[in-house]
Amino acid sequence: MATRLSHFNHKTSFFTKSRSNPRRPSPRCIVAMARTQSYWASVEAEIEAYLKKSIPIRSPETVFEPMHHLTFAAPRTTAAALCVAACELVGGGRDQAMAAAAAIHLMHAAAYTHEHLPLTDRPRPRPGIQHKYDPNIELLTGDGIIPFGLELLARSMDPARTKPDKILRVIVEITRATGSQGMVDGQYQELGLDQLGSEYDIIEYVCRKKEGELHACGAACGAILGGGAEEEIETLRRFGLHAGMVQGIQGKKKAGLMEEKIEKLKELAHKELKSLKGKKTELISSLIEPSVAAVQIS
Amino acid sequence: MATRLSHFNHKTSFFTKSRSNPRRPSPRCIVAMARTQSYWASVEAEIEAYLKKSIPIRSPETVFEPMHHLTFAAPRTTAAALCVAACELVGGGRDQAMAAAAAIHLMHAAAYTHEHLPLTDRPRPRPGIQHKYDPNIELLTGDGIIPFGLELLARSMDPARTKPDKILRVIVEITRATGSQGMVDGQYQELGLDQLGSEYDIIEYVCRKKEGELHACGAACGAILGGGAEEEIETLRRFGLHAGMVQGIQGKKKAGLMEEKIEKLKELAHKELKSLKGKKTELISSLIEPSVAAVQIS
Repeated sequence: MATRLSHFNHKTSFFTKSRSNPRRPSPRCIVAMARTQSYWASVEAEIEAYLKKSIPIRSPETVFEPMHHLTFAAPRTTAAALCVAACELVGGGRDQAMAAAAAIHLMHAAAYTHEHLPLTDRPRPRPGIQHKYDPNIELLTGDGIIPFGLELLARSMDPARTKPDKILRVIVEITRATGSQGMVDGQYQELGLDQLGSEYDIIEYVCRKKEGELHACGAACGAILGGGAEEEIETLRRFGLHAGMVQGIQGKKKAGLMEEKIEKLKELAHKELKSLKGKKTELISSLIEPSVAAVQIS
Repeated sequence: MATRLSHFNHKTSFFTKSRSNPRRPSPRCIVAMARTQSYWASVEAEIEAYLKKSIPIRSPETVFEPMHHLTFAAPRTTAAALCVAACELVGGGRDQAMAAAAAIHLMHAAAYTHEHLPLTDRPRPRPGIQHKYDPNIELLTGDGIIPFGLELLARSMDPARTKPDKILRVIVEITRATGSQGMVDGQYQELGLDQLGSEYDIIEYVCRKKEGELHACGAACGAILGGGAEEEIETLRRFGLHAGMVQGIQGKKKAGLMEEKIEKLKELAHKELKSLKGKKTELISSLIEPSVAAVQIS
């Protein structure tokens, strides 16, 4: 397990926050936590296996080796796992959401690669990434990963299980969340290109556009593919938005000063899950309660 | 007309080579040429109008204004027009190919923008583009244009006219041609990252992967959307590959030394069209005979 999760980014993964939790849970709670933890770990492992199978290192190796490396060098986003969990929550099979989850990770990995690209107006290298390749290669690899993610999804069509119009709907969801109205807008604002208000307003906006909308998209895509009703899709989308924003804000330096905002967002997220009557929401709710998901059994 | 075409890139557009043609065509030929020219001009104008409608300058303007600008700052690729022409050739309606043609232009515009990005390992600015924005903005805009092109296509689904599985097939075509196995591979080789053989071998490979496969994709997508038979789709794909390579090589400094290669490719392209019995191939064949398409009526 430790090996499988070792590449996880400590800022975004919810598996890695366990040891700092001062509370000692009850034995019954520990069983629930173990179940939750093993659920997310199995989802993450399956997404990873799916990606590894999908990006073989083949000819031309100068193209595919960096693509493979940069796909896995990026920290995992729980938006991909949420896609699978939302699909299962509404009664779908895990395999139905796998291509969409992989596509979400790939779009996120491309964005991560480009965010860390040394441009001439980014004089100092950004922390957080080991540059194994020249900027030219990292730029092109990111450019290759974006269409590849969507190709994977478009190719995943199995008319016997999922209607092609559902796949198209999911493609629209993912392109919107990761394009100019979503993630790219967040990246713009993060660069300080627009001044939206106070520093906290900007953090909130960036986290809404980046982690928020990516998780919203993940949850909605999973629910669409799993055959959820429109109401369930929208409820899970709102849950994803709040849960993603929580993750985004918690990863910021100013998180300690935004506790009130975080609690409010968690409350909103929980409220959405409560409205999903008759559904097993414990697993998915652990996304906003890292300590529940992450505690080690000892 | 002059205004509408004034933004055309002189290297790739086939409308702009007229005045250097020393041969004087016959009056009958002039009529055919005028028809051909007005056909391509109308196709290009419709693609442009479709793109303009699809990318309004809306909020956030910091995101959409550069997106609009960089979409139209890129030289036009005839691969987009070929998509429309192939669709009409097999009996489809022009509107059925419009979203795919726009997506092809957008993918090409994103690649063009990123190719001209000043990276730290690209010390001298590349010629051919006026940098209106900072590198950060151009990078992000390119990243936004790629998913937007595919979103446009996925959203274009009109089940009454085109089955969603056809749109998915076209998405796979476009993502492959513009991703790591196609255009991105060509860009790698253009940077000299791999040494494939002689200088001419590299030019040929790059032109196959860039202009060649983009035109092959354009022709195939048009034929798919227009309801062409599998054989027609593959014939038009091969025509597009050769025609695109001709355009690519003709745009290179060494083109004068590759006349034999160019003639061979034109011959291969014509051979493909001849096999399309009973189809009106004059319009499409003008793509490899710029003088026919471009001569001015005087």
